[in-house]
Amino acid sequence: MGALDKLTEIFSQFPGIGPRQAKRFVYFLLTRNGSYIENLTALLGELKKEIRRCDRCFRFFPKDAGASTRCPTCRDEHRNGALLLVVSRDVDFENIEKSHTYDGYYFVLGGSVPILDKEPEKHVRVKELKRLIEMSAKAATPLSEIILAMNANPEGENTADYIRDTLADIAPKNGIKISVLGRGLSTGTELEYSDEETIKNALKNRG
Amino acid sequence: MGALDKLTEIFSQFPGIGPRQAKRFVYFLLTRNGSYIENLTALLGELKKEIRRCDRCFRFFPKDAGASTRCPTCRDEHRNGALLLVVSRDVDFENIEKSHTYDGYYFVLGGSVPILDKEPEKHVRVKELKRLIEMSAKAATPLSEIILAMNANPEGENTADYIRDTLADIAPKNGIKISVLGRGLSTGTELEYSDEETIKNALKNRG
Amino acid sequence: MGALDKLTEIFSQFPGIGPRQAKRFVYFLLTRNGSYIENLTALLGELKKEIRRCDRCFRFFPKDAGASTRCPTCRDEHRNGALLLVVSRDVDFENIEKSHTYDGYYFVLGGSVPILDKEPEKHVRVKELKRLIEMSAKAATPLSEIILAMNANPEGENTADYIRDTLADIAPKNGIKISVLGRGLSTGTELEYSDEETIKNALKNRG
Amino acid sequence: MGALDKLTEIFSQFPGIGPRQAKRFVYFLLTRNGSYIENLTALLGELKKEIRRCDRCFRFFPKDAGASTRCPTCRDEHRNGALLLVVSRDVDFENIEKSHTYDGYYFVLGGSVPILDKEPEKHVRVKELKRLIEMSAKAATPLSEIILAMNANPEGENTADYIRDTLADIAPKNGIKISVLGRGLSTGTELEYSDEETIKNALKNRG
Repeated sequence: MGALDKLTEIFSQFPGIGPRQAKRFVYFLLTRNGSYIENLTALLGELKKEIRRCDRCFRFFPKDAGASTRCPTCRDEHRNGALLLVVSRDVDFENIEKSHTYDGYYFVLGGSVPILDKEPEKHVRVKELKRLIEMSAKAATPLSEIILAMNANPEGENTADYIRDTLADIAPKNGIKISVLGRGLSTGTELEYSDEETIKNALKNRG
Repeated sequence: MGALDKLTEIFSQFPGIGPRQAKRFVYFLLTRNGSYIENLTALLGELKKEIRRCDRCFRFFPKDAGASTRCPTCRDEHRNGALLLVVSRDVDFENIEKSHTYDGYYFVLGGSVPILDKEPEKHVRVKELKRLIEMSAKAATPLSEIILAMNANPEGENTADYIRDTLADIAPKNGIKISVLGRGLSTGTELEYSDEETIKNALKNRG
Repeated sequence: MGALDKLTEIFSQFPGIGPRQAKRFVYFLLTRNGSYIENLTALLGELKKEIRRCDRCFRFFPKDAGASTRCPTCRDEHRNGALLLVVSRDVDFENIEKSHTYDGYYFVLGGSVPILDKEPEKHVRVKELKRLIEMSAKAATPLSEIILAMNANPEGENTADYIRDTLADIAPKNGIKISVLGRGLSTGTELEYSDEETIKNALKNRG
Repeated sequence: MGALDKLTEIFSQFPGIGPRQAKRFVYFLLTRNGSYIENLTALLGELKKEIRRCDRCFRFFPKDAGASTRCPTCRDEHRNGALLLVVSRDVDFENIEKSHTYDGYYFVLGGSVPILDKEPEKHVRVKELKRLIEMSAKAATPLSEIILAMNANPEGENTADYIRDTLADIAPKNGIKISVLGRGLSTGTELEYSDEETIKNALKNRG
């Protein structure tokens, strides 16, 4: 198998890309001039050098002069140390942060737990989360609430259940409450087409 | 214009039906045998005779032996008289009732108020709603909360705003609180694609 | 079951309509005033009286003063009597006639033959088609070609195959050729996504 | 702008990829281990070395031992030298070749000509096509037909028109006929929804 087929195979692994579009990517690259691919190759090389993972919240961030091992959000001392929002992925962090509606800290699990998976600990950073909880509990502003911010679908709920179970011991011991994002009508929801779960929560969370 | 074109025009007014599908309906009817159309015609005639509008909540319901002017839901004395859920349409009532998560009474506005509409009172039954509120306030279990259950879209919010304004006087005077359905993640919502409003409410309604 | 549910059931049989939309139709009718339903009922009654089926091509057409049993197209003597286009349904006739690209006569089969169906003659008017062929063969301009104009999908092809088999005897005996619509690229087709059959025919029919 | 944003920008240029999915690609790469990106980078480097463009039909093909400048299809002497199929892109070549319905040679234009474009010659290889025609006209089996195989949409038709105009001189001089792929019903087409152009051609190409 030559470079064309191998590259097609690699692009097929990109999120949301099937074999046909992967092949179009390869042909697209073949029609670019040499400097385009050189530029792409150089940036791929730089990516891992320029970006590091925060050793507190585990999200990716661009390295800066000070060579800090923590991301700007984790270093920001004006945030509310009592709150920790746990998300599955960097894109979730980005979208929530963009909404300017939360001022506590974050933790990125790095994935979600598929239903009925036998080894959930392989999909999410639970050990690292526990360590952060222990550290935060002793901080000047001790952690008092962990908000599980997972997608409102079966895999997201499974992930939240798993994290809740995993923290069943350590959270209360450190005076930490575990909460989940509120369910209800999201923007655009029509009552005629809503499921029972959404209606139930919309009623419960009315105000 | 003959019956074929006139019927096509009438079917085009049915919700969600364009001229092409309306014409298919007419051809479909033409290929049915005579008794099919006779049956349809008879049922159309019976419809208004058999179905009446509840004079309390204004939803449609099949007339019954007792010839009551109230629907079975309004007649059910085991429901919680302190709660009144206000919906736009019969289909909203049906879907919420089907979810078995609410045991108070209902009121059907009969529509919603388009944004910037000059005569909102023409789209929704406010006079009737006020009358019901005054009656319910003096009931054995007096009404204590009106829940506005509108779609989570601009027209739904506009309708809720209009109802709230309209009741600004009468509700507090009768000791009635006005609430709206809780916003948050509805079933299927993914955080990566959620808008600011949904995230803000999901955080506010966490628990 | 009352009129509301029975009507919902009838509307569910309309082409392309599911139970949910059928119910919305009923609620829509309930909210119309009395004259709306009276008008609809009257038009339904007139429909079968005003519309008749042509006794030559079997399409529906509005009756006219002369009370002819033939539709205007079959009565038009300027058309090419050598050609007969066989379609499945009235809507196919309408769309082809609207394209102004054909000047022969038509025949409406009244349906199509599902794959593996045991009684194909119950779905399409073969007896009537044969009678028309025999009549047309002796006309001043005798019929010389029957064009089978079916959808380019399995059921359409199955229908064309069945008609061809059925006419295997009568057509050559009367000097009539049987043809099918040309296959190839239809408007909007992209070569990258075309199937083998389409490419093969596009090549065969190039010109 | 760091590597993360620059890479996002480059991936946004990939066919069919928007900024959001481009960013997901970058995060996806960040979560792969080091060898994944090294592998991708190596294959990108090899791609242009391993793949060459055929100097006859201009499609891409993997270089082989003999270091031929012609692709296997152009080297295949069992093909019909009288036919040349002109396509816009490599993917069109691939799909047609996969259909096993054509045994002549190919020519890849490298693009299509947008409607009203002022410099059509910048989008398609006309100079190279003319050179190939002159060469082929003198071959043992001289070229006798050029088949323009463009998409059945406005840009495809515009491209075919431009190529036809460009060859108006050279083609007849060399005894070469220019044809286009046949139009008609493509697989899945329904007559009820067909446009005039498709119906006209389906009737013309009937058989």
